[in-house]
Amino acid sequence: MGKEGIRYAAKVSLDKPAAEQDCLHNRWHPDVPSYTTIKNNEVVKIECVDWTGGQIGNNDSADDVRDVDLTRIHYLTGPFDIETAEPGDVLLVEIQDVQPMQDQPWGFTGIFAKENGGGFLDEIYPKPAKAIWDFEGIFCSSRHIPGVRFAGLIHPGILGCAPSAEVLDTWNKREAELISACSHMDRDVALPPEPKNVHAGNAPSSIKDKIGKEGARTVPGRPEHGGNCDIKNLSRGSKVYLPVHVSGAKFSVGDLHFSQGDGEISFCGAIEMAGVITLKFTVLKNGMSDLAMKSPLYIPGPVEPQFGPGRYLYFEGFSVDEAGKQHYLDATVAYRQTCLRVIEYLRRYGYDDYQIYLLLSCAPIQGHIAGLVDIPNACTTIGLPMDIFDFDISPHAKAEKKDLGSCAKVGGGK
Amino acid sequence: MGKEGIRYAAKVSLDKPAAEQDCLHNRWHPDVPSYTTIKNNEVVKIECVDWTGGQIGNNDSADDVRDVDLTRIHYLTGPFDIETAEPGDVLLVEIQDVQPMQDQPWGFTGIFAKENGGGFLDEIYPKPAKAIWDFEGIFCSSRHIPGVRFAGLIHPGILGCAPSAEVLDTWNKREAELISACSHMDRDVALPPEPKNVHAGNAPSSIKDKIGKEGARTVPGRPEHGGNCDIKNLSRGSKVYLPVHVSGAKFSVGDLHFSQGDGEISFCGAIEMAGVITLKFTVLKNGMSDLAMKSPLYIPGPVEPQFGPGRYLYFEGFSVDEAGKQHYLDATVAYRQTCLRVIEYLRRYGYDDYQIYLLLSCAPIQGHIAGLVDIPNACTTIGLPMDIFDFDISPHAKAEKKDLGSCAKVGGGK
Amino acid sequence: MGKEGIRYAAKVSLDKPAAEQDCLHNRWHPDVPSYTTIKNNEVVKIECVDWTGGQIGNNDSADDVRDVDLTRIHYLTGPFDIETAEPGDVLLVEIQDVQPMQDQPWGFTGIFAKENGGGFLDEIYPKPAKAIWDFEGIFCSSRHIPGVRFAGLIHPGILGCAPSAEVLDTWNKREAELISACSHMDRDVALPPEPKNVHAGNAPSSIKDKIGKEGARTVPGRPEHGGNCDIKNLSRGSKVYLPVHVSGAKFSVGDLHFSQGDGEISFCGAIEMAGVITLKFTVLKNGMSDLAMKSPLYIPGPVEPQFGPGRYLYFEGFSVDEAGKQHYLDATVAYRQTCLRVIEYLRRYGYDDYQIYLLLSCAPIQGHIAGLVDIPNACTTIGLPMDIFDFDISPHAKAEKKDLGSCAKVGGGK
Amino acid sequence: MGKEGIRYAAKVSLDKPAAEQDCLHNRWHPDVPSYTTIKNNEVVKIECVDWTGGQIGNNDSADDVRDVDLTRIHYLTGPFDIETAEPGDVLLVEIQDVQPMQDQPWGFTGIFAKENGGGFLDEIYPKPAKAIWDFEGIFCSSRHIPGVRFAGLIHPGILGCAPSAEVLDTWNKREAELISACSHMDRDVALPPEPKNVHAGNAPSSIKDKIGKEGARTVPGRPEHGGNCDIKNLSRGSKVYLPVHVSGAKFSVGDLHFSQGDGEISFCGAIEMAGVITLKFTVLKNGMSDLAMKSPLYIPGPVEPQFGPGRYLYFEGFSVDEAGKQHYLDATVAYRQTCLRVIEYLRRYGYDDYQIYLLLSCAPIQGHIAGLVDIPNACTTIGLPMDIFDFDISPHAKAEKKDLGSCAKVGGGK
Repeated sequence: MGKEGIRYAAKVSLDKPAAEQDCLHNRWHPDVPSYTTIKNNEVVKIECVDWTGGQIGNNDSADDVRDVDLTRIHYLTGPFDIETAEPGDVLLVEIQDVQPMQDQPWGFTGIFAKENGGGFLDEIYPKPAKAIWDFEGIFCSSRHIPGVRFAGLIHPGILGCAPSAEVLDTWNKREAELISACSHMDRDVALPPEPKNVHAGNAPSSIKDKIGKEGARTVPGRPEHGGNCDIKNLSRGSKVYLPVHVSGAKFSVGDLHFSQGDGEISFCGAIEMAGVITLKFTVLKNGMSDLAMKSPLYIPGPVEPQFGPGRYLYFEGFSVDEAGKQHYLDATVAYRQTCLRVIEYLRRYGYDDYQIYLLLSCAPIQGHIAGLVDIPNACTTIGLPMDIFDFDISPHAKAEKKDLGSCAKVGGGK
Repeated sequence: MGKEGIRYAAKVSLDKPAAEQDCLHNRWHPDVPSYTTIKNNEVVKIECVDWTGGQIGNNDSADDVRDVDLTRIHYLTGPFDIETAEPGDVLLVEIQDVQPMQDQPWGFTGIFAKENGGGFLDEIYPKPAKAIWDFEGIFCSSRHIPGVRFAGLIHPGILGCAPSAEVLDTWNKREAELISACSHMDRDVALPPEPKNVHAGNAPSSIKDKIGKEGARTVPGRPEHGGNCDIKNLSRGSKVYLPVHVSGAKFSVGDLHFSQGDGEISFCGAIEMAGVITLKFTVLKNGMSDLAMKSPLYIPGPVEPQFGPGRYLYFEGFSVDEAGKQHYLDATVAYRQTCLRVIEYLRRYGYDDYQIYLLLSCAPIQGHIAGLVDIPNACTTIGLPMDIFDFDISPHAKAEKKDLGSCAKVGGGK
Repeated sequence: MGKEGIRYAAKVSLDKPAAEQDCLHNRWHPDVPSYTTIKNNEVVKIECVDWTGGQIGNNDSADDVRDVDLTRIHYLTGPFDIETAEPGDVLLVEIQDVQPMQDQPWGFTGIFAKENGGGFLDEIYPKPAKAIWDFEGIFCSSRHIPGVRFAGLIHPGILGCAPSAEVLDTWNKREAELISACSHMDRDVALPPEPKNVHAGNAPSSIKDKIGKEGARTVPGRPEHGGNCDIKNLSRGSKVYLPVHVSGAKFSVGDLHFSQGDGEISFCGAIEMAGVITLKFTVLKNGMSDLAMKSPLYIPGPVEPQFGPGRYLYFEGFSVDEAGKQHYLDATVAYRQTCLRVIEYLRRYGYDDYQIYLLLSCAPIQGHIAGLVDIPNACTTIGLPMDIFDFDISPHAKAEKKDLGSCAKVGGGK
Repeated sequence: MGKEGIRYAAKVSLDKPAAEQDCLHNRWHPDVPSYTTIKNNEVVKIECVDWTGGQIGNNDSADDVRDVDLTRIHYLTGPFDIETAEPGDVLLVEIQDVQPMQDQPWGFTGIFAKENGGGFLDEIYPKPAKAIWDFEGIFCSSRHIPGVRFAGLIHPGILGCAPSAEVLDTWNKREAELISACSHMDRDVALPPEPKNVHAGNAPSSIKDKIGKEGARTVPGRPEHGGNCDIKNLSRGSKVYLPVHVSGAKFSVGDLHFSQGDGEISFCGAIEMAGVITLKFTVLKNGMSDLAMKSPLYIPGPVEPQFGPGRYLYFEGFSVDEAGKQHYLDATVAYRQTCLRVIEYLRRYGYDDYQIYLLLSCAPIQGHIAGLVDIPNACTTIGLPMDIFDFDISPHAKAEKKDLGSCAKVGGGK
């Protein structure tokens, strides 16, 4: 009578390479073998490694960030077969809890080198950097960014069901077209299938080879299934509605974040961590048609940290780039400008730009589309919660430069 | 002892053409004559016409929207000289209240014809349409979009200080370059100075001619001063920090909105109205340098309607357009897709697409940047407050088609 | 087509004695003549005088508070007949807006003398005092309590439907019994019917005499109909469900408050004002039985000022009185202690006790029942929003005494 | 470098009688031996048993509630010496997290028999009853009260520092006076020291005897130190400021609640559980004088479940008791009436009264003091969050009786 502890559908080891664990995989492909089966309406716990599979250490050097191997990332836990799920259904996933690993109460935020991963501001800030965050119950703080502390909005960066062969084919074609069309650009615009370091649970080598050749990379979210949406609000108590494309759904989850700002701008921008997530799965038969669903839906949980609207300082950015060039209704350009405005503002207190870049990536900032129709300017805004600072950053208080240390940089030394 | 009623710095007439009122103007230019002077730290009331200057009627036809004359819009009240304000200062504007005109408790939302103004979705929805909203205290509802009702987040679409000659010159150059660079596109990408129907208060004709030739159009917000930012949260109780570029600041305000969604997607997308705004002006000497300010800042007020996070239904959109083409980290494309996802969802209840397009423009939807670094997909989200509907739109309740009428269309007839 | 301005169901004059205005009355009695009729589902505006009927002036002396004539108070606007309302129905009143009078943007908070009205702390603070509040849009501030400013949670202190003869009889009997049982106490415990200064609209003198003899005083709220509930959250956007006891409902409203704290502890503790309220009336047939209703229900509106839970400083009080005497689960004693704890805390900044007593009465403090079962101690709490102060009152910031002036006292002089 | 898992200052066993565990005690007394020492500014985890020490089982009978031994309750973990804390200091306790025991994801709410513990409504509902709650991550639901589910506002019911001998003496005297003064009442009004089943950690028998004779019972909160305040908002992220009366502070904590409503009306009214709490301790030297502190202060955390003000249904109660007798400004009587109003309302859906009584005790209801000065009526309100129900309980939706089972009762059987 009553419940025992909740069943673990998968446990990971933090001491063993991710590539050797059967419950993990790092490509989206319908043929990744199901790790185990979960009942409809069942609640389970699932453990996840951090998205780099343990490549980043709790130390004061960014050498590990500089050297990160991007073919060995995004190890997801799963896939899981959900009983009764069939293509055309919707899988309702309730995120009942997310927690860091009990024995590893810390996480990291990284700025990747422009030539190895990069990020939203890499033209301006091309060097690798890192901040380590210590978890104190619901709060976190960092020795690399003193003066701030906030409650986590813990969430999975990635969750989704496997693509069907047809969906996968669509992805590969349209992304290949983009790569082809952008061959003149000096940067990666998308990542094609890559056999190197593919991991597909306990798939036999023939299947694994196939997955290496065809499997979609896990970096982008995609409209048909969600995936790496990096939506900061998919936190405790939220409900996510996911399209099902294959029999059993083949659900996977990973890339847990202790906190993230809208945009996750430094790419490895959330507070990345290993942890455990408690999920309830419910199959909604024929849900895609009933809900007219082409992309996932979600409803946030009721326990998001709340500061009150008047405790946010908002910055505005427009689609005029840093060289003064006017762009046409380009919200991406506008958001980059908004980020720069925050950096300029916070720099006044003694933070260096890399510290702020890291902070904007992981703190619970609100990134809004404000106006997208007033030609030629898109306008976006960023709301910075003033209460995460232990000094007064409101415009009416005089800014004084302090010694605020520095983030971890290449070569180390705080 | 004690206060009398608050002084009106400007009153408008709703019965007289906007172009004949000395307290109005419709270009940004340093030479528009100051209408009157306001003291530092003074609180005043300022009346504003609706942004079309009364071209749209409270009726059931969209003919007026189709025929709107876009050279006769955006009549702003002002400019006002604020005592002691000098270039380099910041003008702190506290929005103490905004109200519709007592005798005109209604407003409108319009979809402009693709060939006359257009909007964010005009490739898909090119026809003119309109909804009239009746104000019921803090709430509004529309006979053209039955089943919804919400509290207004009343705000001015436009506020800002005049550009200096140098700033104006920068604007004109960079927008001209865009126009020139986009000459192959079949649509306006920016609006150059336009002498036709210029209005500059009581400026003598020589000045007015100059303003017509050089004055910046009021449609876009611009980073240097704000302007038409269309930020829905600049509502009661908010504080806005504006850069000052000319002596006296020459502050103007207009384009009042009873409510607006993030993006204001149908262009005339807010609930447009005439009304009165109560403002307090405070000059922060040397504020631009002290605050390292390149674009306006603001802090929202404490009385925004609050629904609780769990009362929003969120939709996701990605930078894959409706033709299936992959774009590179394009938040504008992603936001358009997000809008389409909401339309597909709400269509299930019997709304027609134009009704939903109007609703998305003016209801207090939250438009967020979610992810902007996971190549190649940008991801944006829209949070739709479920409590604005008088029926249950949550995914767990079965959708039933109802007769939900229609918005005002060309030729009229509800 | 469309709406004109909203109809006024009653207008008051601030220049004429309340006792001479037909739309006002100051007793609850079924025979007060209906002032006018309002349709079911109609929206109307109703003007109200302040609850003292203009006895208190905007000045720096508390002489008027000391001398207030308590037989000439609580002039309510109405009663209004609501079409179709019958006994047993419920009258749903939606408060669509409440505003101060345009030309009188100020209000007052008073501490009544112990021997003339008194208040919750009159054993400790027996002297009259007053604060005048200036309205600045949604905000208010007072020259008598410097350092604080907050958004109003504007609401009517009193609204309700007339009692039937039976209900009135019940009231008179049970309150007479209390008066009789408490005859040994040195203070009024209830107010019996009082013919002096009775006002009953345009009732002929015979009816007026009857009302004087039988009419219930307006001071207390009462379970059967609501009345003077002084619930701070009945603000813009809220819905109130009121029992109907007589044909036509005979609804009345008055005693508008710009703001009030839970408990309204100084009796004249809200920020009292004259103003106009916009109401929609809907009759729910047979509602009392359908809703099993013995006392009013309400649902607050969505625009309450929100500070975030972490922006409140909470004080605890227990049912041990200031003499050290233990009381048994007495929440009233506990709440008095909680109030005293706040006074002791805020006194450290230089406020005098009367200023704090006034502030606690009118600022949006949250008064909670915490524990009521842990014998012998009841525990209540008060949440003080820290953001209403323009200096930091959090416990971690050192308190420094400032010159914070004083409230208006007898004899005047700031 | 970086943090390991957080240190446990005390662990409890759920398989061993509470009375045999050295880290537990069940009286307030300065001589209870310190269990261990915690550094100033240290973060530790502390495990706690449920307040009955395991007397209540996860089953469908209320026999265990009927038979509960009230001398064997409130086993607190501690006391802990905090380094540097001295009398006159304030101990700042930050509640960084609270969680149920991993392997025991359930809790209980009980209605005690009138003759064995009783509760706020025991005159009306004298029989024992129980509900078992299953924890699903941040949510809970009960097979004994179907149709409701909510996020926990997890908190400790009891925390405080030990009294000094003088403070203890004050307590014993004033409570003895109450007991003496109320000897005519047919119920316990307070609990005097009780040697039976005293537990004092590993105290030698002479000390234990002394504690038995003098030690204050843990049932009530008390103004001088806090104790059993049962404040539902002392949840994750909150900060509590506690007076220190003895050297080392001798801090204790226990009686964890997964959720509780304001008032905790059924006495064993929270969702009682065993669990682990993460606390940070900071000593504020001379804090009692600096903060003018007579009773604890607290600041809630930022992650309280938020529903939006318009999602609460509020009930009003007045100080007229259920027999129709008028009481004088008695908030306790008013709150009882408010509770009864909720019961009458929810009964319409098919719940039995005992189910609702349990629900009101443990669900996150808001209990407010509304008016306390309008003689003779006190008015209190209860805000019931409508979103905890899986059907629509708003007044506009027709109530239909359902089969909603029953709570656990004596003799069992669902």
